[in-house]
Amino acid sequence: MNYLSVHCRSIVPYTAGEQPRGRSFVKLNTNECPYPPSPEVERVLREFDASALRLYPDPENTALKAALSAKFGVPTQSIFVGNGSDEVLALCFPTFFDQGSTIAFADVTYTFYKVWAHTFGLNALIVPVDGELKIKAEDYLSLPPHVKGIVICDPNAPTGMSLPRTDLIKIIETNRDKLVIVDEAYCDFGKESLIGVLAEHPNLVIVKTLSKAFALAGARCGFAFASPELIAGLNTMKNSFNSYTVNAMTEKVAVAALSDSAYYAAVADKIIKERELASDVLRGMGFTVLPSDTNFIFASHKSVPASEIYFSLKENGVLVRHFKSDRISNFVRITIGTHEEMKTLFDKVSKIVKGKL
Amino acid sequence: MNYLSVHCRSIVPYTAGEQPRGRSFVKLNTNECPYPPSPEVERVLREFDASALRLYPDPENTALKAALSAKFGVPTQSIFVGNGSDEVLALCFPTFFDQGSTIAFADVTYTFYKVWAHTFGLNALIVPVDGELKIKAEDYLSLPPHVKGIVICDPNAPTGMSLPRTDLIKIIETNRDKLVIVDEAYCDFGKESLIGVLAEHPNLVIVKTLSKAFALAGARCGFAFASPELIAGLNTMKNSFNSYTVNAMTEKVAVAALSDSAYYAAVADKIIKERELASDVLRGMGFTVLPSDTNFIFASHKSVPASEIYFSLKENGVLVRHFKSDRISNFVRITIGTHEEMKTLFDKVSKIVKGKL
Repeated sequence: MNYLSVHCRSIVPYTAGEQPRGRSFVKLNTNECPYPPSPEVERVLREFDASALRLYPDPENTALKAALSAKFGVPTQSIFVGNGSDEVLALCFPTFFDQGSTIAFADVTYTFYKVWAHTFGLNALIVPVDGELKIKAEDYLSLPPHVKGIVICDPNAPTGMSLPRTDLIKIIETNRDKLVIVDEAYCDFGKESLIGVLAEHPNLVIVKTLSKAFALAGARCGFAFASPELIAGLNTMKNSFNSYTVNAMTEKVAVAALSDSAYYAAVADKIIKERELASDVLRGMGFTVLPSDTNFIFASHKSVPASEIYFSLKENGVLVRHFKSDRISNFVRITIGTHEEMKTLFDKVSKIVKGKL
Repeated sequence: MNYLSVHCRSIVPYTAGEQPRGRSFVKLNTNECPYPPSPEVERVLREFDASALRLYPDPENTALKAALSAKFGVPTQSIFVGNGSDEVLALCFPTFFDQGSTIAFADVTYTFYKVWAHTFGLNALIVPVDGELKIKAEDYLSLPPHVKGIVICDPNAPTGMSLPRTDLIKIIETNRDKLVIVDEAYCDFGKESLIGVLAEHPNLVIVKTLSKAFALAGARCGFAFASPELIAGLNTMKNSFNSYTVNAMTEKVAVAALSDSAYYAAVADKIIKERELASDVLRGMGFTVLPSDTNFIFASHKSVPASEIYFSLKENGVLVRHFKSDRISNFVRITIGTHEEMKTLFDKVSKIVKGKL
């Protein structure tokens, strides 16, 4: 007797990047921040009252929403928080789209969108990126009326490239009959957020995370900004699933991190500088490196296949990410690490492309 | 334009107990543990390396599963973990039941089951508890074949009463064509778990939590025990929703708590003693107190309506829980607090029933 639902048996789950245990790697595969979180995070952890863990967390996450409001200038009733931006994005699907609806997203983008569409019974209209792997605004300006939503990762993963801000706004304004989710997970490394135009666009949901630019991947905290009506819908869906998604410790460290803008501005600056350096160095070794607005680069070598680079690097203690899907199978995605980590990467890669590793 | 799905608009979310902010209450309304977690929890929080938060948590939660395996004697491939037992239970619904399926549960039980059934498109066959608010095994022994699953909270909430172990096993064995979920959230206060018979029952899923007996409601950690096949299904569903549900801090404090059985045995003993004392004291004041196997009691007064007791207690700084649904609207659910908290409760209640408050 098979006790699993037919639906469960039909699911091909998302595959996250490897989280190695045991062996120590230079880990440039899951776009984590190479620097620790703000010293404020350390401080609140030291001061955290363990006895408070006996109580449920605040289901409204009042303190966290207040900190997000102060940091991003968004009213608290326009803020939704969750256990990582993956949870926030997952909850968006059933909140905004009924089963059997169609939503549009790129062929080369965050692969979890396709998984969530299947999980929540939606049809996907896959919009190919162009020959340079760019999302083109014009492909989203005359979508058929049965398309109920659009999901855009901006900057996009795994390419690292952004749409021009005016193009994004044109997509949102041209599609007032559709809900537009803009996933800004990587929007803190030089690209301007759409938060400034949120109030004018009732069909816009912006999703962000503390995992990347705030160095808190281990704490799990993501959030969405949208009109109070849309946020109320997300809260209804959350409270029909799990009342307490953000735990008491995460709320504390998130509030602490959000208070230290100066620290994180310096971290983003360092990552941007290393990114530009790495792009130049790899181009010098014969790589095509896509222009990145993120904390990673997407690169393809003129002669050495990406799979070979991935495996050789792994054998030599450096983890990067390689995707098997057709259009990007000759690229590796490299997270920007510390200066030391990047020097190790350059050393190994230069030997690999010379056939010496 | 309404951007919310029809489904979202149809949802009546679960209502959790009040989590008061600002005013300080004697808080006996959400079945939290009145004692702090083990000193080991304090220790690992003090020693927690904040810089590790820059990395994603282990998506397999290897250390946590190893600790659960050691504590409960269940092989790791039979263990699923999640962000609180509510998340674990929520994920069970689509993992085991297809939309349009029917599942059976009691009319007086954890009210989230009904919400999840609606959220995941299932029909509910509501099985009334008997005149004494007890779940009767015989009501589950000849369910129609179209019923695909049974959910039993044992001990039941909010009544606090258990089914005899032999009755539970009879339900599981008689319903081999159905999946049986036994929610043991409150099973650490005198009632024996079904873990010992798990291996013989491929249709059994046991769900437990660290929120109650382990005093970690604020950390959010729940788990399920079942056959490796059922656990694989839960992992598939989780990984089609959110890859990293248990954060790095929660994993550490959970492992620490699970290592300190002696501390928690003493905590459970104290709660059981206070529960028996409270039951006697309230009976002496004219209450019917249902026999409880949990960390709360469910009580109804012979002359003062439960809503009046609830509101008078709240006005006087004591929070208990009152449910409005018909069959239990004349009961209050009182979490067992510390000896001091219970003395305050007795004092206020004795005045209320004498009309002096």
